[in-house]
Amino acid sequence: MADISKTLPLTRSSVIAAHELVKPHIHYTPVLTNTTLTTLASTPQTPEALADTPWAGQEPAKPVLRLWFKCENLQRVGAFKVRGAFHALERLCLDEEWVNGGGREKGVVTHSSGNHAQALALAAKTMGIPATIVMPAISTPSKIAATQGYGAKVLFSGSTSVEREAVVEEVIKETGARLVPPYDHPDIMLGQGTLGLELQEQVAAMIAAGHVQATKVSEHGLDAIMTPCGGGGMLSGTAISCEGTGIQVFGAEPEFEGADDCKRGLEAGQRIEKVSTLTIADGLRTPVGAYPWRIISDKRFLRGMYSVTEEQIKKALRLVLERMKVVVEPSAVVGLAVALFNEDFRRLVETEGGKGGWDLGLVFSGGNVSVDALGKMFAPPEPAQGERAEGTLGKDGRKIAENVAG
Amino acid sequence: MADISKTLPLTRSSVIAAHELVKPHIHYTPVLTNTTLTTLASTPQTPEALADTPWAGQEPAKPVLRLWFKCENLQRVGAFKVRGAFHALERLCLDEEWVNGGGREKGVVTHSSGNHAQALALAAKTMGIPATIVMPAISTPSKIAATQGYGAKVLFSGSTSVEREAVVEEVIKETGARLVPPYDHPDIMLGQGTLGLELQEQVAAMIAAGHVQATKVSEHGLDAIMTPCGGGGMLSGTAISCEGTGIQVFGAEPEFEGADDCKRGLEAGQRIEKVSTLTIADGLRTPVGAYPWRIISDKRFLRGMYSVTEEQIKKALRLVLERMKVVVEPSAVVGLAVALFNEDFRRLVETEGGKGGWDLGLVFSGGNVSVDALGKMFAPPEPAQGERAEGTLGKDGRKIAENVAG
Repeated sequence: MADISKTLPLTRSSVIAAHELVKPHIHYTPVLTNTTLTTLASTPQTPEALADTPWAGQEPAKPVLRLWFKCENLQRVGAFKVRGAFHALERLCLDEEWVNGGGREKGVVTHSSGNHAQALALAAKTMGIPATIVMPAISTPSKIAATQGYGAKVLFSGSTSVEREAVVEEVIKETGARLVPPYDHPDIMLGQGTLGLELQEQVAAMIAAGHVQATKVSEHGLDAIMTPCGGGGMLSGTAISCEGTGIQVFGAEPEFEGADDCKRGLEAGQRIEKVSTLTIADGLRTPVGAYPWRIISDKRFLRGMYSVTEEQIKKALRLVLERMKVVVEPSAVVGLAVALFNEDFRRLVETEGGKGGWDLGLVFSGGNVSVDALGKMFAPPEPAQGERAEGTLGKDGRKIAENVAG
Repeated sequence: MADISKTLPLTRSSVIAAHELVKPHIHYTPVLTNTTLTTLASTPQTPEALADTPWAGQEPAKPVLRLWFKCENLQRVGAFKVRGAFHALERLCLDEEWVNGGGREKGVVTHSSGNHAQALALAAKTMGIPATIVMPAISTPSKIAATQGYGAKVLFSGSTSVEREAVVEEVIKETGARLVPPYDHPDIMLGQGTLGLELQEQVAAMIAAGHVQATKVSEHGLDAIMTPCGGGGMLSGTAISCEGTGIQVFGAEPEFEGADDCKRGLEAGQRIEKVSTLTIADGLRTPVGAYPWRIISDKRFLRGMYSVTEEQIKKALRLVLERMKVVVEPSAVVGLAVALFNEDFRRLVETEGGKGGWDLGLVFSGGNVSVDALGKMFAPPEPAQGERAEGTLGKDGRKIAENVAG
């Protein structure tokens, strides 16, 4: 990565500058709307659905929501991570000291078993820079093959962060390669933030073109954006991209086994640095990074964090797969799960949005999930197939009118 | 349905007229391209991959293909069927005799356990016409609920076609309702054909806008369209929509348990009227209808039929889900499976398309599949997840460069 001293300030104009650099490398991913999901989000949950939740016995909230989905699952390598990776390398290449010191030849290095590995491998290959990716030896063969497929050198390590970092250190010592971390760096944050810019721009264009949302036509563009939060690169970058626009930014986390570290950190007034969770939202198992935290913990940038259960994530995932007909990974639907099931958030929208409601942008962060994993997630299929699907949807206590996408 | 005597002639201009009628009711579904799938289709299969096929020992074909996917899985009710249903009812409403005879009040009736049930229910509700849908009592509760959700009256029957038709007859006797069959009527064919018009128009617009396909920029628009074929409404309608355009039309069928009735019928010179198959492509289990057959068996309209195995359908389905990140039902990928795996078709493209290759339009006919069904389809997941995914893709003997959608 570029030295911190050489990074741009964390402002909206720096995100715009980042967008100029990454635009040629990335897909301008579509923004989709969906009648079924927008209707469902705007329908109160039933009292029965709230029975086993912290909101049991309360009057269900009556928010009006129009949902806009930024489809980074359709991004290159299947996730938003390419934005940060390309931005990091483009910024490095602008650093004369690094280039003149033979940086391009010495290459870059990272450790990752997930989407960042493939993203950096692709970016490095595209820009003619050698890349070494340290992956836990237990990584799935398909992910290793994909990373190698982009021409990256893959080294194996143990699976703890100490073991992985030790191998990275060795690579740096031997080759002089520069570390490109997955989220904890301003260049990564600014790169990921470019999706926020596009989302704002696309929703404005769709509204100008007379795009009608289920309940009523939007008049004013986005009121809020909510993104999933793991390491916080995307959330902080998106928050920076909204600076001065009046758009409120929210983060969404799984709550399983303490995966809601960011929310808990905000409550405690201090970043939580360690998390050990096996939430199905596997992209969000990591604690929030130090640089993203600076933005996320700043009230001027972030309005609030909300969390959801594993069951709520699965329900949202099923809805997206079956009703919207796009493939997303579990991490991608955590924001939608908040919008559908978290009564604190829904009450806020009801109170502040009133009858006009809110236009809410949600980010489908990635789509890298195998059908085997999906099958496992929704197993076991003992009773009649249809019955189970019905039951799961029916539990929301809300009737869905039409099995429609688009 | 309108009396046959009152239907339009089976010509391209009738499809254009049908499009004017249905346009206000349907989604203009997107046409997507995909680098990975286009690259894979343009890469020869390995000799090993052909080992257990009719082409064992032959030199693998070297077609150049650029694929364009018409996404009717994103259509209302999740399938192209709404096109025919809306067209049928719009045409009925133009029939003064029917209207003056109280037709609108007497309503419409059909029997279906699949996408046609929901399509007709939606169309009838939209147009203020009462609808009765006869469904086998064993239909999945979610499908029954969805059909009722559109306000249709659902009656139950046994699952054989004799039992179903008996209930329909009763309804007609009691109410005077008009039968709207799922495919075997010119109005349905012309309605489904509207997707062919849109596909032609969209590909031309994308090419004009400089849309680049993986291997090279297209110069001339579509060379061919291939659609799945069950009852034949979509295939025949699409063929009619291509009349006079120079675009060649192909049909794709599963071959499991004789589901390739249309292909076999063409070889025998006679329509096969009975099929009993449990292919996973459950939308294609029905034999081709009499009216569609007139078009499909006419060399001026249809160039040829090709079939694929259950395994090839599953492989194509996995590729679409994991690489393209859209949800499709098994029936929807039968054309893609032909393009990827059927050496007869691939040889034809190599021979006739030469180095310039073919631009091939494929129709994703529907997306109505539950995650439970998908899980079951790709079970059992005993060995390591990644290994299986890899193995399945690897078997094609073709390396896929990038996990990209769009």
